[in-house]
This record gives sequence, C-alpha cells and structure tokens, in this order.
Amino acid sequence: MQHGFTCFDQFQKSLNIAPNMLTRRLSALVDAGLLQRRRYSDRPPRYEYILTDMGRDFRPVIVAMFAWGNRHFAPEGPSVLLVDKKTQRAADPVLVDRRSGKPLNERDFVFAAGPAASERTRRRYAVINQKQFAARQSSTPARGRKRSTS
Amino acid sequence: MQHGFTCFDQFQKSLNIAPNMLTRRLSALVDAGLLQRRRYSDRPPRYEYILTDMGRDFRPVIVAMFAWGNRHFAPEGPSVLLVDKKTQRAADPVLVDRRSGKPLNERDFVFAAGPAASERTRRRYAVINQKQFAARQSSTPARGRKRSTS
Repeated sequence: MQHGFTCFDQFQKSLNIAPNMLTRRLSALVDAGLLQRRRYSDRPPRYEYILTDMGRDFRPVIVAMFAWGNRHFAPEGPSVLLVDKKTQRAADPVLVDRRSGKPLNERDFVFAAGPAASERTRRRYAVINQKQFAARQSSTPARGRKRSTS
Repeated sequence: MQHGFTCFDQFQKSLNIAPNMLTRRLSALVDAGLLQRRRYSDRPPRYEYILTDMGRDFRPVIVAMFAWGNRHFAPEGPSVLLVDKKTQRAADPVLVDRRSGKPLNERDFVFAAGPAASERTRRRYAVINQKQFAARQSSTPARGRKRSTS
C-alpha cells in the first residue's frame, strides 16, 4: 500500500512471507482501521486492500522509525533510503512545526495537557513541566538531558 | 526521561503503575539500548536511568505517534499537546527533509534501495518503483493512492 500495491498476490510476492501470515497481518490492519478491504471483482471474487485516511496518516511514524533504524542499526550503511523523486537525493527526515518550521526538539517543545485532558493528566504535566523548568534554572546541568552517555 | 525524570520513584509516581511493571519496562528499555542505568550514589545504593543517544533519537517516533493519535483517537479534542515553550502555541508536527525543507509526502518521496541493500532488496524496490511510475503514467487513477476511502 505504501508502495502502490493493493492485492494479496502483490503483497505476497513483494514481502516473500507465508500466505497465512500475510492473511493474519492484513486482517489485523483492517481491524485496526488502517486498511479497507474492498471487492473489486465479482467473477471471480477479488479483493483489494486500500489505505484508509488513518492508515495513510500513519506514514510519518513509519518514516520516523525508518530514520531511527538507519541511524542506529545500519553500521554498514542504509539498505533503504527515502529518496526525492525529482532530485534523486536521499532525504534526512526531521520533525518540524508546520506553521513555524521550527524543529520539534526537546529544548523548545514540551508535552503539556490539552483541552480534553483529565484532571490527573493536568496535574501530571503541571509537575513535569515545573520539574523541567527547575532543571533548566539550576546551575548543575540537568541529568538525562545532555547528549553524552559515558 | 522525556520529561526530565531519571529516578524510579519519579517514574512510578508520574506513571502511576505497579513497581514490578515499571521494573520490567525499564529493564526492557535498558536491554534495548534506549536507557542507561547508572549508579549515582553508593550509600545508599541508588540508580538513575538516562537516555542514551539511541533513546533520545527515538523521540521523533513518539512525537509522530502522538500526532497520529491526536488526529484519529481524540474525537473530543487532544488530552496532550506538544507546545512551543516560548509562544505556548501547540505544534502541528510534520516530517520534512532537513536540507530542502520539503514535506516528506508520498508523492514526492519514495523508498528506494540504499548503498548497503542486498540483491533481494534492490530487486524489490526496482519492481516497486517501476510499478509506482506506471501507476502515475496510466490514465486511470492509481488505486490506494487517493485520499478518499469511500
């Protein structure tokens, strides 16, 4: 589906996995609301699998995981790249805020309670953000915040 | 760790989960290389958990998941937001290419075999990208590519 495939046989050939495992995985994705199963031929009965909006919107999670994997699990270089179709250059994925374009790094952006937060979530983030503020104010560098892990 | 916490008691209080479950999860994260367990006091013996580089780099995956969850599983509005500390405005996370700033959408960016790809991976992406090219060339709209799922 990411790759333009929609039919069982195409998935099976591309992924090279056992049909029963593919059936199970496709069903799980349909049940989770990421794929829609659609009959596109009556005689013979044939089905295709189409990404739902929810499934399509999952792509950034996959791209973020892929970038993380390439960085930390490919010492011999990446096996797969995300490539700009026009320039053929490999992309370097980074999350930014759509409006401001600012990178969503941990220094500038914090998780906070939203409008539908429960009382418990509200209290939890009040404590968390107070703590982060205190850590930044203190003269000693905040542990767990620096880049080095030695 | 995301939130500036480093100690077992802090995690336990913030997450409100059973200690044995927290122990298991922290061990799993240490084993996976995302956290480092460090003794910071000998008497009494005390440990803290610090994000490794690998753990810190996992943040975009969490942010991408969080954005997906807010979009599809919060009909009553988000319980948690990612907020710009300076402006207090909620961020709208989007993945872009670091160099060009182009959004990494499926129309402009495709997965392709990288320098360390196996022969099988190389063949697989050759087929995939040929198929995607053919789909764009054909007069009928490529299935599984359009936004509507009805």
